This record gives sequence, C-alpha cells and structure tokens, in this order.
Amino acid sequence: MSYAALEQHNQRISGLRHVEAISAWDEAAMMPPGGGQARAEALATLRGLIHEQLTDPRVGDWIAAAESSGGLEPWQRANLREIKRAYLRETSIPRRLVEASSRAESQSEQAWRMLRPASDWQSFRPLLEAVVSLKREVAAALSSNLGLSPYDSLVDGFEPGGNSEHFAALFAEIRAFLPGFIDRVVEKQSRETVLEPEGPFPVERQRWLGLRLMEKVGFDFVHGRLDQSHHPFCGGVPTDVRITTRYDESDFQKALMGVMHETGHAKYEQNLPKSWLEQPVGAARGMSVHESQSLLQEMQVCRSREFLQVMEPLVREAFPEAFARNARAFSVDNLYRLATRVRRDFIRVDADEATYPCHVVLRFEIEKALIEGKLTVADIPEAWDAAMFSLLGLRTGDNHRDGCMQDVHWPAGLFGYFPTYTLGALTAAQLFRAMIESDGVREALAAGDFTPMNAWLKDNVWSQGSLFDTPELIGRATGAPLGTEAFFRHLERRYLAP
Amino acid sequence: MSYAALEQHNQRISGLRHVEAISAWDEAAMMPPGGGQARAEALATLRGLIHEQLTDPRVGDWIAAAESSGGLEPWQRANLREIKRAYLRETSIPRRLVEASSRAESQSEQAWRMLRPASDWQSFRPLLEAVVSLKREVAAALSSNLGLSPYDSLVDGFEPGGNSEHFAALFAEIRAFLPGFIDRVVEKQSRETVLEPEGPFPVERQRWLGLRLMEKVGFDFVHGRLDQSHHPFCGGVPTDVRITTRYDESDFQKALMGVMHETGHAKYEQNLPKSWLEQPVGAARGMSVHESQSLLQEMQVCRSREFLQVMEPLVREAFPEAFARNARAFSVDNLYRLATRVRRDFIRVDADEATYPCHVVLRFEIEKALIEGKLTVADIPEAWDAAMFSLLGLRTGDNHRDGCMQDVHWPAGLFGYFPTYTLGALTAAQLFRAMIESDGVREALAAGDFTPMNAWLKDNVWSQGSLFDTPELIGRATGAPLGTEAFFRHLERRYLAP
Repeated sequence: MSYAALEQHNQRISGLRHVEAISAWDEAAMMPPGGGQARAEALATLRGLIHEQLTDPRVGDWIAAAESSGGLEPWQRANLREIKRAYLRETSIPRRLVEASSRAESQSEQAWRMLRPASDWQSFRPLLEAVVSLKREVAAALSSNLGLSPYDSLVDGFEPGGNSEHFAALFAEIRAFLPGFIDRVVEKQSRETVLEPEGPFPVERQRWLGLRLMEKVGFDFVHGRLDQSHHPFCGGVPTDVRITTRYDESDFQKALMGVMHETGHAKYEQNLPKSWLEQPVGAARGMSVHESQSLLQEMQVCRSREFLQVMEPLVREAFPEAFARNARAFSVDNLYRLATRVRRDFIRVDADEATYPCHVVLRFEIEKALIEGKLTVADIPEAWDAAMFSLLGLRTGDNHRDGCMQDVHWPAGLFGYFPTYTLGALTAAQLFRAMIESDGVREALAAGDFTPMNAWLKDNVWSQGSLFDTPELIGRATGAPLGTEAFFRHLERRYLAP
Repeated sequence: MSYAALEQHNQRISGLRHVEAISAWDEAAMMPPGGGQARAEALATLRGLIHEQLTDPRVGDWIAAAESSGGLEPWQRANLREIKRAYLRETSIPRRLVEASSRAESQSEQAWRMLRPASDWQSFRPLLEAVVSLKREVAAALSSNLGLSPYDSLVDGFEPGGNSEHFAALFAEIRAFLPGFIDRVVEKQSRETVLEPEGPFPVERQRWLGLRLMEKVGFDFVHGRLDQSHHPFCGGVPTDVRITTRYDESDFQKALMGVMHETGHAKYEQNLPKSWLEQPVGAARGMSVHESQSLLQEMQVCRSREFLQVMEPLVREAFPEAFARNARAFSVDNLYRLATRVRRDFIRVDADEATYPCHVVLRFEIEKALIEGKLTVADIPEAWDAAMFSLLGLRTGDNHRDGCMQDVHWPAGLFGYFPTYTLGALTAAQLFRAMIESDGVREALAAGDFTPMNAWLKDNVWSQGSLFDTPELIGRATGAPLGTEAFFRHLERRYLAP
C-alpha cells in the first residue's frame, strides 16, 4: 500500500515535470522576448509546487513503510531507492536556502550575460561570491544528511553516486596523457592541407540535411522534433523529445555535428523503458551516461570516416552551388580532416574531443577547491591562468571573457556538473569499443546501417533507465569499470594513425 | 490581510494557468503525434492541481473576511467579486462529478473524431447521452449554489452573468429579421460576377502576408507569435499570445481572414491591464466580449472595402504569379465580393456573417431544451432538421455529419458556449458603430491607420479587464444596452446598399 502510494505520488510529480519541461523548451525555442518575466514567475511557481510535492511529509512515512514491507519486484526496489534519494536531497535543504540560492543565481546569471562580453570581472565577482557562499551552505546541508563530502553531494545531484576521488584519479591519467598527445597531433596536422567549404549554406538546406541524418541514425519523429534556439540542447520528455540547434550560414558542419550530438541525447530519452516512464527508475541514469550517448553519436560515430562517407552524397545534395564552386572541399578526405581538427584554444564549447578534457579538468579542480573553501572567488583568475598554461600552454591573463567568465555554469550555480562531460567521453569510448565488437555492428556502421548499433545501445543502456547505478550499468555493458584506456586508444587511432 | 492572501493565492494560480496555456498551445501547434497520451495525463494532473488550489478551504474564509473588512479600492472589490465567483463555481461541483464528466467528455470527443466522418449517429448517441446526463447533474449542482437556472449556470461559465431569457429575446429578433434579409442578399448577389483568384498560393507567402497585416493592425510581436494548427485558435497568455491558422494553397482569403480574426482576440489579450494580469480582475471579460473583438477585427474592419483597398497591394506583392495570371480577380471590387459572399449552407464554421447567427440560434434552442430535460439526445436529429429548414431552408435529413454531428462543442461537453458567438457579433457591430463616430477613427481606418481604432478599443474595452460586468462594459462603451439594431444596420449597409 505504501509503495503504491509512492508510485501514485510520483506519477503526479511526473505530470508536473512534463509541463515544466515543455514550458522550459518553449522559453528557449519559441517564446517572444516580452514573455520572459511572466514565464519566469510561472516556472518558479510550478517548481515551488514540485518541491512541495517532493518534500510532502507523507513521502517519508511511505518510504519507511515500503522499505520494511518487502514483496517488491527488483525494478520496484530500484524505484524505491531513487525515490528515497530524491526525498533525502530535497528535504536536506531548508526552503529559505532554496529561495535565497534561486534568487542569487538568477541575479548572477542575468548580470553575467552583460558582464561577460565586457570581460568585467570586478563587477561580476561579488555576484559570484554570493552564489558560491550559498552553494557552500547547500553543500554543507546536503553533506550532513547524505554522508557525502560537500563537493560530492553537489556532484550527486547530476551524477548519482559520483565520487570525486574516483574522478580525480581518472583526470590525473588524462593530465598525464593529453598534453604530449596533443603536441603530436598538432604537429602531424600541421602538415595536412584542409579546404574550407565556402558558403553560404542556407539555413533551410542545413535543416533539411540535419533532419535526413537524424532520420538515418534513428531519431523517432513520432516522439520528437528539431527546432532552433540560442544554445543548443535536448529537452522535452521521453514521449516528446525536443532538440534544438543554431545555424551559421558560413559553416554547415557546426550545426550538423551539434544536431547529431543532441540526437544522441534524444535517442536515449526516446528509448527509456516505456512502462516505467512516470517513475524515477524510468529516468536516464545520470549526466555522465547521458553525455556518453551524445558523444558516442557525435564523436565516435559521426566524426568517423565511415559516417562521413554516408553523409557526403547528402551534403552534396543539400548544397549543390557550394559543391559546384569547390568540389574538393566536399571530398570525404577533406570532410574528415575538417571533422577531426585539433587546436589548443581558450573556449570549451568550441573545443575538439582531444583538448576538451583539459577544459574540464581545469574547471573540476577549481570548483572543487572553491566548494571546499580552499580557494576563494578572488583567486579564480590566477588559478585559471595557471591551469590553462599547464594543461594547454595558453595564457588567459586578463582576458576573463575567454577565461573564467566564459561558461554559464558557475553564475547559474551549477557546481559539480563539469566533470560529467569528460566522464561521458570516457564512457562513450568504452561503450563504443564494447559495441563494435558485438556481432555485425562494425560492418553495419560502415555500410550506414545504424540498426544493430541502436539495438545494442537499447539493450545495454537505454532500456535500463535507472535500474542500476552508473558503475554497474557500465560494468554490465562493457565488462570493465570505467577507465581512460578506451578513450586514449580511440584518440591515438583517430589522430595519430598514419 | 485576508484580501492580500487572496491576491497571493491567485498569483500562484495564475502561474499554473500560464504553464497550462502554453502546454495546451504546444499540444495543438507543436506536439508530435506520439506525445499525446502523456501530455493528456500531464495536463489532467496540472488541472487537478489548479482545481485543488481554487477550492482550497482557506479561500472561503479569506473571502468572507475580506468582504467584511472594507478598505479595498474599486479594482480590488471587483477582483474579490471575480475570485468569489470562481470559488462558488468550483466548489459547487463535487470532485467525483468533475472526474466523471472529464472522462465521459474525453471518450465522447475522441469517438466523435472517428464517428463524424462516418456520419454514425447510432454509435455516437450513447456517448453523447452520457455527457448530457452528467452535464445535467453539473448544471443542477451549480444551479442550487448560484441561484441561476440550470442552463444559465452553464452559460455563466463562459459568459459571466449571461441570462438566457435575454439571449432568447435577442435571438427572436434575429429569427424575425434574417431569413427575409438573406433572401434579398442572395437574390442581389446572384446578379454579380465573382472571379476566383487562381492559386496555388504558397504557404510561405500566405504566412508573409498574414504577418504583414497582423503588424499593420497592431499585433504586438514582442508579446506573441503566429503558428499553424489543425483548428485555428488564440491561446497562450496576455504577455505571450499564441495565435494559429491553417493554410489552403488554393484559397488565400480563408487563412488571411482567419488570421485577422485571431488577431482581434490577440489584441484584447495583449492589452489587458498590465498591473492586474495575475489577478482574475485582469482577465478578459467573457466570451461574448472576446468574440466581439475578433469579429470587429475580421467582419467589421477587414471585410470592408476600405481595408481591402489597403490589403490589395500587399496581396499582389505576395502572389505575383497568380496576379499575372488573372489581374481582374485581384481588383478591390472583386476581393470585396469574395469577402462578402452570402450563401445558405450546412456548416457553421464556413458560414458568412449573415447566415452565421442562424446556426447559433438553432444550437442555442436545442442545447437549452436538452439541459432543461425538454428534449432527449435521441430527439436531436429531428429537431436539427426542423430548425435548419425554418432558419435556412435546408434539409439535413440523415446527413448527421453535416448536421448535428458537425461541432466539437457538445461531444466535448461545452454546453452554454454557442450563444456567445452571436452575442459577440451583436457586440462587435455596436462597438464598431460607437467607435467610428469617435473623432478621427473613420478617416484613419479609410487611410489604413489603425492607431485611433486601437486607442478607442484600449480605452473602452481592453484596459477594463473584468472591472465591470458585461452589460456595464457595453453600456459605458456604446451608451446603450446590447441590442440587434447596430448589427442589422451593418448588414443592410454592407449587403443591400446599391
């Protein structure tokens, strides 16, 4: 009875989260500018109501009764575990702190939009200090209730069970491997000629091409759609997944690879276990597994020579004028060189797969020290400059805009999120290696047939929802705990093979 | 204090209604087909929650305390009246009845979509009987709480304070006037030559033309947008109004006039009193005033010769090929004849402004008798056929698809809504007459300047929200109670002038 009450209660919460997700997508993809203020109020009200439902005092009693009653099926036990997890997290933080954080983060994010282009660190600093100070309070409150370190209790919000000592060990291997590896790749690529396809590439044609490739790799248009927004993302709900992109008429590959990235996220959502969709156990496992699905699609599959071979005739069909102007820029060889260029640069979101982990390691180290109180906000620029130099050989100096002010995560209070990007890259490489060793997948991929790949991912990842924790999911799918080896071998094969 | 609590409570409800409105718009305009089931569940959950908020027992106490405490400003007293109205309505109906009705109406509406094309009255009848039987229960429950007749208590849900005896008196005048009037118009028009502009009229060009005209008449694109849906409507929220249309590539006027109709609704929403938007007193007055705004825009303004003169160069710009094929079909004279054709036909939604009220009177009489128990569902086809013959000289016979099964309203449980369409037409004519007698409006309209018109409507209608009841709003704006005279004179001037 108590367990049934929990399922019913969560079904209700799932309905509210559904309209929250659609309204948030709408805000980014559809809303006219004048709708913003009322939308923010409406979403705040709705989120307050969801928080109220999540912390309903009856939930605690139901959980206790369900835990002691037995007789649950395995998926129900996993569901109970997830429900308890959310309840513990939500009830750890006093409402006062929830509201104060929300307010400080809104202020700092809104100010950041103006101050970043001006590179104005001095004005931004006090706002970030307010965010960090409240975030430390949140972390302390969570920490004492969850029995995790303060930083890990923030990580746990994005990556359930995530352990920063484990991350640090993996990142140490990355720190040891990447700088020398990047040197060798940059040196090798300096001897190659790359032709830039010359636009314009009309938005409508880019959209057509994106839709064709989405269809090809298995996006389900009965349960989703593609639109535009300023920042690409994957939103909506599993029965109705909304992905977005942005178009640059002078560069079609950027949007195209972005669309493939979001399609990876979307296929995960669209293939979550149907019968558990309204329960926490039916949700995607966590941000590192989610990111592994987008990176597996974009980096492992779509930037491969085999995929570009499949893509090339469609690209020609999409842009006949550009092709006529310079056919050689559209050769598979050249498209491949474009898709795999490695360059040390300041901006994370523009980074290639080889330099990207350096950006993440840097942020992980700084934000962990910040939450632990070992670093103050005032120390960030110096720490940033030092880490950029040691990881990528670049000096940020006073260029805060392209340095510590470049990301929205910290002004928005998202501490503990960054590591999941690189955990996702490691997971993607390890899953991909296990997958292509499975019967027929490699041959099918080479022939542009994505059915066996999708079947493997569905069996091993998508259909599992949150049944297992992340290490168990990865262990079952790949036969090994998460490591750096598959990722490093992938990089060497792609970037250093003669 | 109690009144302040009510305002705060309603602000919260307004936030929930905001996400409800956006999610409902999304369902009609954006949602892929596979998203429907989960969306229906999510919206049901949200609506259940809104009902819970509206019937919160504290609300009754707050209302009683606020009523006896005094010291409120006039707009606050009006707000209190509206809050009380909603509370009385919502608490009249037991939750069991709300849920049973919702289920019966969903079933009957879904079945109707299949059964209407098949003209299958026999299968549809029991479903409609279930809806009507529950609706009679709802009406009885409301009636005893509100002190209104059962039918009027349903009307009151769409048209607050609406009185069906008053409607019946107006409709009797319409019944006396229209049949003879339509005879004369049809006879007159039979001697005119009308050319059909020949398409195709590409959707993108139609959309361009619609957007240009929306801009011209004062739609605010900072607070709204235009999209497509199967059934055109005006949705969203006042700060973010979403109108939709559907396009027919062989007929550009249908979508265009539809867009102008929805723009009329939209301008009302966009110009509701800003500072009261989160309170019931800030909402549009009711469905008859709302419909008056769309009909004033579409029928009074946009189907006038003056407007077509403004529109004509834009139409030529939108469809240069069609214009080149047959320039005479695009002359202002011909466009005017197209926009004012009168034809007796079976389908309400395709009717012109002269025959439209006949369709409404018929439905009003039947649905009123149904709710009063003077007619059974089994009697509907015969009653329909008889009324169609007496009002429009047409025999429906067994053509239920184009007869009593043509509208979604009854299967969806919307009894009491139909009269507001014709009340809206009367109101539009009366407002228009008062407006063009105001300084400079007539001359400005003739010159394609809609600023004075919009200023008049804003002063007299839009900015008033729900401050006054409908009769007082109309009396203040036009100096007279609602009647048929302005509407009849408008029809005579437009359709019978030599």
